[in-house]
Amino acid sequence: MSHKMEKVEGGITAAGGVEAAGVHCGLKKEGEKDLALFRLLQPAAAAGVFTTNRFKAPPVTLAEKHLTNSIKGLVVNSGNANACTGEQGFKDAFSTAQKAAQKLDCHPEEVLVASTGVIGVYLPMDKIYSGIELAFEELSPRGGRDAAEAILTTDTVIKETSYRVVDDSTGDGGTEGERPYFYIGGTAKGSGMICPDMATMLAFLVTDVKISRDLLQKALQEAVKYSFNTITVDGETSTNDAVLLMATGSSDVEIAGEGETWEAFKEALLVACRDLSYQIIADGEGITKIIKLTVKGAPDYETARTISRSILNSALVKTAFFGEDANWGRIITAMGASGADFSPHKVDIFLGDVQVTSAGRGLVFDEDRAAQVLAQREVPLLVDLHLGPETLTTWGCDLSYEYVSINSAYRS
Amino acid sequence: MSHKMEKVEGGITAAGGVEAAGVHCGLKKEGEKDLALFRLLQPAAAAGVFTTNRFKAPPVTLAEKHLTNSIKGLVVNSGNANACTGEQGFKDAFSTAQKAAQKLDCHPEEVLVASTGVIGVYLPMDKIYSGIELAFEELSPRGGRDAAEAILTTDTVIKETSYRVVDDSTGDGGTEGERPYFYIGGTAKGSGMICPDMATMLAFLVTDVKISRDLLQKALQEAVKYSFNTITVDGETSTNDAVLLMATGSSDVEIAGEGETWEAFKEALLVACRDLSYQIIADGEGITKIIKLTVKGAPDYETARTISRSILNSALVKTAFFGEDANWGRIITAMGASGADFSPHKVDIFLGDVQVTSAGRGLVFDEDRAAQVLAQREVPLLVDLHLGPETLTTWGCDLSYEYVSINSAYRS
Repeated sequence: MSHKMEKVEGGITAAGGVEAAGVHCGLKKEGEKDLALFRLLQPAAAAGVFTTNRFKAPPVTLAEKHLTNSIKGLVVNSGNANACTGEQGFKDAFSTAQKAAQKLDCHPEEVLVASTGVIGVYLPMDKIYSGIELAFEELSPRGGRDAAEAILTTDTVIKETSYRVVDDSTGDGGTEGERPYFYIGGTAKGSGMICPDMATMLAFLVTDVKISRDLLQKALQEAVKYSFNTITVDGETSTNDAVLLMATGSSDVEIAGEGETWEAFKEALLVACRDLSYQIIADGEGITKIIKLTVKGAPDYETARTISRSILNSALVKTAFFGEDANWGRIITAMGASGADFSPHKVDIFLGDVQVTSAGRGLVFDEDRAAQVLAQREVPLLVDLHLGPETLTTWGCDLSYEYVSINSAYRS
Repeated sequence: MSHKMEKVEGGITAAGGVEAAGVHCGLKKEGEKDLALFRLLQPAAAAGVFTTNRFKAPPVTLAEKHLTNSIKGLVVNSGNANACTGEQGFKDAFSTAQKAAQKLDCHPEEVLVASTGVIGVYLPMDKIYSGIELAFEELSPRGGRDAAEAILTTDTVIKETSYRVVDDSTGDGGTEGERPYFYIGGTAKGSGMICPDMATMLAFLVTDVKISRDLLQKALQEAVKYSFNTITVDGETSTNDAVLLMATGSSDVEIAGEGETWEAFKEALLVACRDLSYQIIADGEGITKIIKLTVKGAPDYETARTISRSILNSALVKTAFFGEDANWGRIITAMGASGADFSPHKVDIFLGDVQVTSAGRGLVFDEDRAAQVLAQREVPLLVDLHLGPETLTTWGCDLSYEYVSINSAYRS
């Protein structure tokens, strides 16, 4: 068997078995959607990956608790993170689930919640309740885009992804209707992780395969490791970060264990998650350039990730990229300070096709060619450790005046 | 016995038994001093603390090797870090020591070296040699200031400290000549750690107590922990960072083991190191504000330091301080993401005398009063974990347009 992925329309409602709506209920400015409601037509298996921040927000704790094989709804609000709100915050998160359960005719435990926005302010529950009422009336199998809009905070664009995966083993001869296929769709919010007051990264995905919660969770964890966990704007991890994946089971594709379909599903999930990750980094506040960093020859994933993070979170590397300066000394310094175990005298560094460091020593290189590489919107940077088999690509961005401007004047 | 510390003139040459000089030899622009030579008149015990960066520069490796009870000289050059220079770099560092040994009539192993400046360029040895010749002619017991000038890179001011410590146990009645006393003096360079191309933080101290290398090393490590290791501009650790302390033994004070004099010496060393640290942070590039952060009630030093670093290295906290915005949500978020073990629901946060967070929850506070606190050049920030006995004060700074400007246009 082989599988073919096709990009389709529909965002998070591309998969069967899900309806969505996005409405304005008064958490954000007039006319800005701020509450999204999702209905799963059949009980869905759900998987989640959540923030590691110790100040975990109440909605995150609640969603972790409610992750089961029988999810019927999801409520997401923007404009208020319901974080650092103590006991009351937990009550409010549960009341949100309760209100949605009433409308969706299910138990509160079958509803997931997520919040994003300002920290330290109680949720205005009357607005949340009326938002859920309103959204319930607007639920639609084509509501993905409205929902995608309702979860945004400082984002400047909507972030969506959707794919159909077709069993291609019968060749081009077969007609679509005869071949089993499934969908995966998703939406995300976040201008990188640069804005924890507006607690920052959320992503929601829906697929219509039939799959157990355990397998779904396993697939999601793997996908997140190589997608959302490979982007960084400034190394901040918010109190509300969450990625939720729901499987409605409305397609004919069943994944009972490992095999070709499992592999095809994992690949599609990874592509969808990467797609959303890239949309997040590309919408980073104040960004003028994306740095696409590949660490090659690492002994393992952790080493590659530690070195990548240290490079991409270095204020000096970021300002050098903003200034389009081929300042490899700063890359070397950030690597050396990362705490990762590697051999400095083996390190090669390439900026695009220009090698700037060989075996840990600086080279005389073509500055004009390097300037051309650095002038691109996406700049490829390769660090080869020559130590092992692991290759990891991660994405970061530069640090501009605009970043300082946005973030020094944010709360006021 | 009790001891009294008095601030005196003289910088690193305040202590007896040391001479210094600072000259121009052509590594920096015409007229800018770039090479410092120190002579210890009697063999001195030496202690050192060095960078943990894996790309350790050859002069650092050499200095580590040469740390003994019998140091006669120290050569420091600015303008070139002799970092990422491989085998040739080691040879050049040793040749530097060898040339100084020739002039000072000792073994190369009795000479320490340090370098700071551009990474990845070989030392121009002819210039170094003529610099040592020239500096040797200018050696003077009042040469501290010239030496302090010669070790600077992007620093905007000279950094010096010097104290006399007098045994005060006889009360005010005794005359100075009758009471044993010792001196400690030092100099440092660094615009914080924000500039690894000009590999960044160096500090040199000289005291005239008689002390073994082991005790000296122990005292230095403790002092560095609560001084140089408590400042951060952007969390970068350069390839050349080094703190060296030499004891000439020319005073009448002998420290053979623990006791009152040992305590007095450690205190004086800590004060001197803190003095230099503060001068470094106050000269941070682009700085408009110093953040003085005290973490109280921590279970141990490591927890306090991890949380401090996470707060002070957060680009979001730094930009908020630049914008004079009492954005406690960003402080909470940085703490939670630090990886340190603490209880979020116990955390109190104070900005000056304004409490902004109680037991992990936000308070409604006096914004005008907070604005006054934030308008100061040095802003006190207190985080109380209510968990244990450890209190640690560390210093950071804001992130300004000027920082981006300086660092995006540095190398070119």
